Amino acid sequence: MNIHAQWIVGFTDGEGCFYVGISPSKSMTLGFRVIPTFSVTQHKKDIKVLYGLKTYFGCGTVYEGKGNDCVCKYRVADQKNLFMKIVPFFEKHPLKTSKHLNFLKFREIIQIMARGEHLKPEGLDRIQRIKSLMNIKYVDIE
Amino acid sequence: MNIHAQWIVGFTDGEGCFYVGISPSKSMTLGFRVIPTFSVTQHKKDIKVLYGLKTYFGCGTVYEGKGNDCVCKYRVADQKNLFMKIVPFFEKHPLKTSKHLNFLKFREIIQIMARGEHLKPEGLDRIQRIKSLMNIKYVDIE
Repeated sequence: MNIHAQWIVGFTDGEGCFYVGISPSKSMTLGFRVIPTFSVTQHKKDIKVLYGLKTYFGCGTVYEGKGNDCVCKYRVADQKNLFMKIVPFFEKHPLKTSKHLNFLKFREIIQIMARGEHLKPEGLDRIQRIKSLMNIKYVDIE
Repeated sequence: MNIHAQWIVGFTDGEGCFYVGISPSKSMTLGFRVIPTFSVTQHKKDIKVLYGLKTYFGCGTVYEGKGNDCVCKYRVADQKNLFMKIVPFFEKHPLKTSKHLNFLKFREIIQIMARGEHLKPEGLDRIQRIKSLMNIKYVDIE
């Protein structure tokens, strides 16, 4: 599948999600693991476009749901791939909807993690503050 | 807003809809009016991209819902604009999801209407048959 960068931007404006999970984890010194993910969901009948995204970015996983009537997901959760591939892509090709504002917060968290600051209390606090501002329903984009 | 054709394709693959309504109408000889529409819906916070589409295509209307938490819609229902602008655009820039198959049926109906055949019983029957195959949930795209 021949995919144009702008098609990915348009499709992500429609179907994509930048999300940061913070989960309790006994193996982490601070007791929490920060898990940023970029994902695109689609009905199973169009799973081929999710594999198209995987090929384009050269990373991530396509999760195939079971049964005919289910949602499938392309997901990138690997920190290095997010930092090296996903973030630079959407910096070069900005989203046109208010999802762009979410992306900017997502990028900030990825950059904090790239510097290893999420392993220190101040860094984790900062991530939690940024996360609290993400995916808010009413966004003033003026 | 500077919009690339491929962004529109990607966004339509995500959020667009090709629909053909057939409604009873006393003013039509056959008693039915065929109303094809191309529409893209979006939350009000991103209404600017709908106006971007309107500017790009040079036709259609943006319907603004009331209140902050509502869905807005860009809609093209004018037969001439569908025939002269929307159909040629998606012929030149094909959709990548199974929505493309819907578009092909939509185009067939638009072409039937452009020839005035929807005003004859055979044409209306044909449109009803094509419409019955549109927007089916499970589409085999192999």
